[in-house]
Amino acid sequence: MKTTKPTILVVNDDGVTAPGIKALIHIMKELGNVVVVAPDGPQSGMGHAITIAKPLRLDRVDLYEGVEMYKCSGTPVDCVKLAVNRIFKGKKPDLCVSGINHGLNNSINVLYSGTMSAAVEGAIERIPSIGFSLDDFTLNADFSHCASYVKSIAQKVLEEGLQTGTLLNVNFPNGADIRGVKICRQANAKWAEEFDERLDPHKRSYYWLTGVFQNNDHGEDTDVWALENRFVSIVPVQFDMTAHHAIPVLNGWSF
Amino acid sequence: MKTTKPTILVVNDDGVTAPGIKALIHIMKELGNVVVVAPDGPQSGMGHAITIAKPLRLDRVDLYEGVEMYKCSGTPVDCVKLAVNRIFKGKKPDLCVSGINHGLNNSINVLYSGTMSAAVEGAIERIPSIGFSLDDFTLNADFSHCASYVKSIAQKVLEEGLQTGTLLNVNFPNGADIRGVKICRQANAKWAEEFDERLDPHKRSYYWLTGVFQNNDHGEDTDVWALENRFVSIVPVQFDMTAHHAIPVLNGWSF
Repeated sequence: MKTTKPTILVVNDDGVTAPGIKALIHIMKELGNVVVVAPDGPQSGMGHAITIAKPLRLDRVDLYEGVEMYKCSGTPVDCVKLAVNRIFKGKKPDLCVSGINHGLNNSINVLYSGTMSAAVEGAIERIPSIGFSLDDFTLNADFSHCASYVKSIAQKVLEEGLQTGTLLNVNFPNGADIRGVKICRQANAKWAEEFDERLDPHKRSYYWLTGVFQNNDHGEDTDVWALENRFVSIVPVQFDMTAHHAIPVLNGWSF
Repeated sequence: MKTTKPTILVVNDDGVTAPGIKALIHIMKELGNVVVVAPDGPQSGMGHAITIAKPLRLDRVDLYEGVEMYKCSGTPVDCVKLAVNRIFKGKKPDLCVSGINHGLNNSINVLYSGTMSAAVEGAIERIPSIGFSLDDFTLNADFSHCASYVKSIAQKVLEEGLQTGTLLNVNFPNGADIRGVKICRQANAKWAEEFDERLDPHKRSYYWLTGVFQNNDHGEDTDVWALENRFVSIVPVQFDMTAHHAIPVLNGWSF
């Protein structure tokens, strides 16, 4: 471990004013020098989107003492790209942490989540990266029971590093009665959509996306299982999406 | 294989009027009954984004004879969700094809690409799904040399199916001198960003995202290698992002 204080990039998808990022900033200040780059408004569900068709704004804001902080008009992934390129300018931070998200990002949500995509982008940039999320969507979510776990997980990653091409997806149950930490795999679950159809004042239809989370996975080694049983779940995530096991099957096909 | 004509959902991220989706629709009409749900404008780089904070529009358009076609105000993933829920209403299509994208979606681009994320969403919905992309960003790209491969790959997937939780990412070199098809893994490459900083008329900075694609992978089994050597690349993709090989390492950590 370095003897100088580590530099820590903090990002999120709920925006620069979210209570979750405030909690994360205060924990990270105990571990190193904190630089924050976060969206200027909510960017939940943005996945790995980047902004191509319009330009980006990046402006300094001063919300918390002793913290270098910027708001960005783009997506969570844009925030990481701008941080690496325009703020760190090639001298990469020692750690990238994303969150703490208001709402779980377990299972298939790793794909839809701006919080997790920001952490994935950190890992693509070869920065040890962690996404943190809490099972509480509300603005007044209580993050206090997460603090000691967030700190020890981040500290461990600063000490040990992570395998190249991997990052961590950490999810917390709501409430203080946590039974410990479980290393898990991503549960095989999905959202069953139920679009809510309404009529506008001009009698034209519009749809609100809603849905029910459906777990089809009965394994006891999944993040869904761990959270239901009041454990903190940690899933190691990779951005190589190759289905390596399918290669021999496809090699048997002729086109 | 079914004796009745298969139903084929066609989506993309370049929008309902793109030449690439027109090419794909015409090929799919030879294989089955085609239903198109595509964004009402360009949605490149939207990754796996979904629309949560505003409602969606879904309107019938009639561009091509004998084709049921809708434009959607949302992202490529929204298009698939709306198609499954509001158009097919649970009676799922036999195949979901996305593209043909104007521009490659090989390697790490699988994460940023709306085209590929739509196909991933198809696979999450347990529909055999394929994304097609061509190495030509221009609006007047020539898709004619892709047609026979697109047809035979789609036909093969209709006949054989795909392993649960997997889909195909198919990329074409530009130009007619194709040497064949290679089954590949996703190359370990990334974008090196170079934000173009400019001043607006009010003297405030703004940034355009640009970048250079950097391949750090010298393997001859990657999609980048195949395309450089004028092969059609097919990468089997999965949406389980768990880094399974990292689980034993993390189990050795104490928090």
